[in-house]
Amino acid sequence: MINKQLLNPSSIVVVGGSDDIQKPGGKVLKNLIDGHFKGSLYVVNPKMDEVQGIKSYRDVKDLPEVDCAILAIAAKFCPSTVEMLAKQKNTRAFIILSAGFSEENAEGKALEKQIVETIDSVGGALIGPNCIGVLTTNYNGVFTTPIPKLDPKGVDFVSGSGATALFIMDAGMQKGVKFSSVFSVGNSAQLGVEEVLEYWDESFDPETSSRIKLMYVESIDKPEKLLKHASSLIRKGCRIAAIKSGGSAAGSRAASSHTGALASSDVAVEALFRKAGIVRCNGRDELATVAAIFNYPELRGKNMAIVTHAGGPAVMLTDALSDGGMEIPHLEGPKAEALLAQLFNGSSVGNPIDFLATGTAEQLGIILDACNRDFDNIDGIAVIFGSPGLFPVFDVYEVLREKIATSPKPIYPIFPSSMVVKEEIDEFVRKGGVYFPYEVNFGNALCKIYRTPAPQPAEPALPEVDRKRIRAVVDQAENGYLSPEQIHELLDAAGIARAKEGVADKEEEIVGLARQIGFPLVMKVVGPVHKSDVGGVTLNVRDEATVRSEFRRMMQIKDTHAVMLAQQLSGTEVFIGAKREDKFGHMVLCGLGGIFIEVLKDVKAGLAPIAQPEALDMIRSLKSYKIIQGVRGQEPVNEQKFAEAVSRVSMLVKVAPEIFEMDLNPLLGNKENVVAVDARIRIEK
Amino acid sequence: MINKQLLNPSSIVVVGGSDDIQKPGGKVLKNLIDGHFKGSLYVVNPKMDEVQGIKSYRDVKDLPEVDCAILAIAAKFCPSTVEMLAKQKNTRAFIILSAGFSEENAEGKALEKQIVETIDSVGGALIGPNCIGVLTTNYNGVFTTPIPKLDPKGVDFVSGSGATALFIMDAGMQKGVKFSSVFSVGNSAQLGVEEVLEYWDESFDPETSSRIKLMYVESIDKPEKLLKHASSLIRKGCRIAAIKSGGSAAGSRAASSHTGALASSDVAVEALFRKAGIVRCNGRDELATVAAIFNYPELRGKNMAIVTHAGGPAVMLTDALSDGGMEIPHLEGPKAEALLAQLFNGSSVGNPIDFLATGTAEQLGIILDACNRDFDNIDGIAVIFGSPGLFPVFDVYEVLREKIATSPKPIYPIFPSSMVVKEEIDEFVRKGGVYFPYEVNFGNALCKIYRTPAPQPAEPALPEVDRKRIRAVVDQAENGYLSPEQIHELLDAAGIARAKEGVADKEEEIVGLARQIGFPLVMKVVGPVHKSDVGGVTLNVRDEATVRSEFRRMMQIKDTHAVMLAQQLSGTEVFIGAKREDKFGHMVLCGLGGIFIEVLKDVKAGLAPIAQPEALDMIRSLKSYKIIQGVRGQEPVNEQKFAEAVSRVSMLVKVAPEIFEMDLNPLLGNKENVVAVDARIRIEK
Repeated sequence: MINKQLLNPSSIVVVGGSDDIQKPGGKVLKNLIDGHFKGSLYVVNPKMDEVQGIKSYRDVKDLPEVDCAILAIAAKFCPSTVEMLAKQKNTRAFIILSAGFSEENAEGKALEKQIVETIDSVGGALIGPNCIGVLTTNYNGVFTTPIPKLDPKGVDFVSGSGATALFIMDAGMQKGVKFSSVFSVGNSAQLGVEEVLEYWDESFDPETSSRIKLMYVESIDKPEKLLKHASSLIRKGCRIAAIKSGGSAAGSRAASSHTGALASSDVAVEALFRKAGIVRCNGRDELATVAAIFNYPELRGKNMAIVTHAGGPAVMLTDALSDGGMEIPHLEGPKAEALLAQLFNGSSVGNPIDFLATGTAEQLGIILDACNRDFDNIDGIAVIFGSPGLFPVFDVYEVLREKIATSPKPIYPIFPSSMVVKEEIDEFVRKGGVYFPYEVNFGNALCKIYRTPAPQPAEPALPEVDRKRIRAVVDQAENGYLSPEQIHELLDAAGIARAKEGVADKEEEIVGLARQIGFPLVMKVVGPVHKSDVGGVTLNVRDEATVRSEFRRMMQIKDTHAVMLAQQLSGTEVFIGAKREDKFGHMVLCGLGGIFIEVLKDVKAGLAPIAQPEALDMIRSLKSYKIIQGVRGQEPVNEQKFAEAVSRVSMLVKVAPEIFEMDLNPLLGNKENVVAVDARIRIEK
Repeated sequence: MINKQLLNPSSIVVVGGSDDIQKPGGKVLKNLIDGHFKGSLYVVNPKMDEVQGIKSYRDVKDLPEVDCAILAIAAKFCPSTVEMLAKQKNTRAFIILSAGFSEENAEGKALEKQIVETIDSVGGALIGPNCIGVLTTNYNGVFTTPIPKLDPKGVDFVSGSGATALFIMDAGMQKGVKFSSVFSVGNSAQLGVEEVLEYWDESFDPETSSRIKLMYVESIDKPEKLLKHASSLIRKGCRIAAIKSGGSAAGSRAASSHTGALASSDVAVEALFRKAGIVRCNGRDELATVAAIFNYPELRGKNMAIVTHAGGPAVMLTDALSDGGMEIPHLEGPKAEALLAQLFNGSSVGNPIDFLATGTAEQLGIILDACNRDFDNIDGIAVIFGSPGLFPVFDVYEVLREKIATSPKPIYPIFPSSMVVKEEIDEFVRKGGVYFPYEVNFGNALCKIYRTPAPQPAEPALPEVDRKRIRAVVDQAENGYLSPEQIHELLDAAGIARAKEGVADKEEEIVGLARQIGFPLVMKVVGPVHKSDVGGVTLNVRDEATVRSEFRRMMQIKDTHAVMLAQQLSGTEVFIGAKREDKFGHMVLCGLGGIFIEVLKDVKAGLAPIAQPEALDMIRSLKSYKIIQGVRGQEPVNEQKFAEAVSRVSMLVKVAPEIFEMDLNPLLGNKENVVAVDARIRIEK
């Protein structure tokens, strides 16, 4: 419901605007004036006819029609003001800075509800309440500073916390990051993070839209919507990074006390972000660093050249990139030698390319050209250049700026001398440059981006399951754990292989069963409690004759009234689980069984539905994956079948969302198949 | 060999001093002048009688006696200049800034050697060559900027790389960190990082010395010396943080190309730092952040209060601390309520303590006093306070400064608004404050410090081993793998339990052996290759009668000429290994066996000798430690015995450094004992 009046209003009124710029109503007006808002600007202030040189009305009812209203008045006055503006003044965009609403108490919540109803009734848009406002390239609708440099190709940013938005902007601005829009959604009474994402997605124009989106969220209320629009944006060529805080148990308490929102389970968030392709960041510095990297062309591989005039930072960056899974390929051969010949004696080009403390701007240009032209095994270039303070380095930074603008491969500038070349850095930023102060922070962020998978396809190929049969079981099931028969029915309907078994009390019957199930088999008496003690368990039954003779023998055992036959399976124990997570639908988890889950917590989670390729990614990112591949002469687990089982479990819980949790533990996997041996399913309708 | 003339010279000559402050010789002179060096200052310049207002001599031989010489002349002129100064001018301290020595080629190496010999012959000190120089509170002997604020209680810093030293100072200064001394050791021709550490240790004065030491190193040449002095300093109350770069394979290539030094194995470095109690950092920002934390009183526990006027950063900090193993205890009860009553409506004190965007300086003071006085479950306090830019916050930062100065618990200030409260931050720093710009970077650094163990004791209690018996085996051993007999002798001499075994070809002999070893036993034929196939293996032999009957049976088997008896052990497979690492002595590794080593790489390493408590720490920090404790009804491994075996292996390799590598794989551990079942030892003399 974000509309033109919110994004690009032709007129704005600040209700509660004043001359006191230490108050929100005064400061937002000053920001609008300082930002040279091109439309009509009005103020409503009951005591003034002019505020900061702007015409002020004593009452809202005296206003002319106005597109957008920014409210900085006490909460209790907001509903009537909104009513008047919406109904009488054709106002269709509202930004309510004031606090005292749902974040405070029940009365506040009621006021908030009333406001939303009014705005909804005229199809308007509401940002807030309890927020710092909105910034677009058209107007500075925030009551705070700093105001970042605005640029249509800069970052689009939505934040669930106003102050945090400011601090994130601060961190970005330090690195030269520019902004295209900033939405502080406050209480998200009508428009929240998800709606802003939806708007970005639906209004995306490959020509004019920014391709960089940042989010700060403390709770995710509509994960499906977030997933849909974030992954859609990324598929359209955008890059998205986000902080979702409150992930730790203690952090979640902190978040609750802050926003009144219950934090969602962090595992689900992680799974959601990976499915969407969102780069998840842990702090402001990391988010701002990732945003700065997003300003450069996308890195097409994992091979980096490091160009430096000082060894140490290059070594540290090499460590960081290499530890994070990227490569710093060795450069050699005639082209490397030709490059070396153009540098001062003592330089090295093996990568890192070290052109010494005496290296010149011209040499830097030569190196960058060579990296672009001569070395196919280089995908991106990091340049570390500071200064010992002997002479200015304007020329070097200018060459960098020029090369960055024309280089097909991304060139990331790292400036480690924040003090002695401050003027050079300032000029670099003033001319539009984006830079990195710390090589290791940069390297870690680059690796994080590199390791973030592409979004899953919008229409993944999902396995067919027998929906009717599944629904039949679930519809008639009670809350609680399902019976073995119900579980078998569900697994069969979902196409999940399970150990075949059957019970019979007649010899011909049991022979028939044995033929159906296939050898080898396990036979067990039905009736006696301590089956082994009475000689009632026989493993490794390999032929019909043994089935017959063992059946006869077993039926003689006291209390035995039948014999159970089951497929005798061998293989590696693996695990698949599913759990319903409030709002997120179901998480499906997989891993190796036993101590790998209980002690090492080596599980990966995805959000249902999970197509087979995504399941395969989950399996392959397990720490114990090598065991699945087969190690020390052990038989491998068929990973395609394992992935298929994960995918089918995800479909089962999609079709039967009443499943609160289920465990297939263990499944036995060998190179032929992955078969559930034991299963538990709990229904909670 | 660091001496008074280097630290606090009464006179300094700059050889190669000039008026061109874009050259090292000009800039170092300017720095000395700007730093108001109090002693006599001279220049040698063949063409000038006065340089930058300082008396210049045309020839070194014309100089009066001078304590300290800073050389900024071509390498080839250095040896004769040093000779003249050392022999004729009583100069006892030399700082050679010039490059062109061992880092460049063989001739340079020869020049360097000559210089060291001259300086050694007069008992002088040499810093460099190929360095940026030395900074102390007495003089600015560097040719670079920025010059940090100098303070006897600031950071003592030694760096193996000059440019990196600058960039690290820059990162520290941004946070308000002051320096007491900076040594850029360049090629470390005479004095390297280890010698500087040694000097700090031996000259440490609890009254006057700084307690904060930082290091940047790319190679560690004298690990034992580093360990000795670093751990000694920490035991005296110092705190040390260091970057050792070049740890990744690619990074090590980068380091080699840079310093000509072969990088030491990173695992050994990690083990060394842990043993010493050094906080290992991965980049400049982290090192500077740790240094900033070191400026505060030591945190005595893991319980933090987070005080904030903005929710988001507090949530992110809570996540970071909590994920890093610290606690943010919930605050409640009458004292919490009393605190809450003094804050604005809507504040929360549950921890994080959020006193809202409207919170005042006075309220902050009340909160900090309460944290100190009322809450015993709080060890340290992080205060996050930025600004939305409505009004200045000088008063808040002033309260913070006052409380920091008097608070028994550390109060860490985090200032997230670098732009709008820049003046306030600058004033805070000008008045001596140290702060943190990013809450998550701060939190991660704090956790890293928290997780760094205390140094091992200088005189650890090490197990007794039979040195004579060990030496006897090793002295007569050839290079290569030892025989089973030799291995048994070594393990027995080192007191490492091993599976008992013996071979006999007579019935009475084997019965005697069985009595010695004890039941249960395994019996195996000696002679046949495929022992199982011919019925030549019997497990679980539990009495003498069976020993006799099985012996008789086995001796009938074709090709059998004797029978082997071995203790039949059961338990969890664990692993101990040792490896000699160039310069570092031996690393000893331990972990669970099998896939835990091969797939999960879950091993911990320590440097020999390892006392039992250190070994226990290693075992307890394994990811799979719960399995050693006993999980899922499995019998635990006796961790004291496991630790003792680790400690004994470390003593074995200490006594027999000719052991190049050894593996005890597996040992079987149960609640009684940990016993080596298979062992391999390789000698390389």
